[in-house]
Amino acid sequence: MKKIKLGAHPYIYPMPTVIVGTLVDGIPNFITVSYIGIVQHIPPMVSITLIDGHYSNDGIKKTGAFSINIPNTRMLVVTDYIGMNSGTNIDKACLFDIFYGELQNAPMISETPLNLECKLVQTINLNNGNAIYIGEIIETYSSKKYVRRGYPYMKKLDPILFSINSHSYYNVGHRIGWAWKEGLKLDKKKIIKKLKPEI
Amino acid sequence: MKKIKLGAHPYIYPMPTVIVGTLVDGIPNFITVSYIGIVQHIPPMVSITLIDGHYSNDGIKKTGAFSINIPNTRMLVVTDYIGMNSGTNIDKACLFDIFYGELQNAPMISETPLNLECKLVQTINLNNGNAIYIGEIIETYSSKKYVRRGYPYMKKLDPILFSINSHSYYNVGHRIGWAWKEGLKLDKKKIIKKLKPEI
Repeated sequence: MKKIKLGAHPYIYPMPTVIVGTLVDGIPNFITVSYIGIVQHIPPMVSITLIDGHYSNDGIKKTGAFSINIPNTRMLVVTDYIGMNSGTNIDKACLFDIFYGELQNAPMISETPLNLECKLVQTINLNNGNAIYIGEIIETYSSKKYVRRGYPYMKKLDPILFSINSHSYYNVGHRIGWAWKEGLKLDKKKIIKKLKPEI
Repeated sequence: MKKIKLGAHPYIYPMPTVIVGTLVDGIPNFITVSYIGIVQHIPPMVSITLIDGHYSNDGIKKTGAFSINIPNTRMLVVTDYIGMNSGTNIDKACLFDIFYGELQNAPMISETPLNLECKLVQTINLNNGNAIYIGEIIETYSSKKYVRRGYPYMKKLDPILFSINSHSYYNVGHRIGWAWKEGLKLDKKKIIKKLKPEI
């Protein structure tokens, strides 16, 4: 297979799509974010990058708190709308029913199937004004219909995937296999044990 | 809708599934990673977290380079296998056809549809031995059949999604909408302009 160079781009597929909530001057604001990832499981942490100039940035820095709200595909229009418009110009708080959990400054969206309440634990300032915000998850919220065996269930959540390059949203397909089991099917004969070259 | 508490967990849905490559003592090693995200677009950066004790960690720290290889669903068995086994015990280099790009210490996998070549630019040590590695993308590689209009195309790539909680892999479904267009459908009558409360 002949490979071609596509240039230096952050081509991670797929990207998740979440709505980050924070208080800006005491008023809830929300921003659609795909530059998000899990940092670690214990203690539970996530990271988001917000580029310089976003209305939410100051809110997160000043309050030390934010929420991550995971919308489903039925919330596509409002999710896209949140990402198209700045809190500088419009009030996004009126779009949702808002609730609070343990923290009093991490506004969460009732309508999204899943909510993560985060305490800012570290801010990594990049040299162009952008910043990575690392949040420790204090609590998560959902409702019974999205939960199976104690955790949120992918097909019930019906989250939105994002492809920034093609300006497209996708949904999740079907289960294709089990983690830590599929690997057992690998033909062991193909595996040559040659840990280190002979010296 | 009544919300219930599910505890403090990093419930980001969906998670991507990639294979990170690095040289450990001069030999290519690979590890399956879902704790990955885009940091920013310009300059292009990604972040991954590797928990303490992984065989690849020293390789990334010493060489200052790593690769991100995005497998498709046909590579599910070997992708899961890579994640089930440590480079301490098995040679993973023999599983793939390996190539190098601009850097001479970021081994990439020919068989995966997409490869990101990364230079380590920052390591953030968490207080439990885990570390976040931030890589700047030097170049990306693919082949013509995965590319449309100059960038990798989601449906052709056919990437693997991961749900760590249900131990399940999923594929991508179908396109459900256009970014920066769906939001235009929002009923403007529902939006109340109330930027700040009257003082």
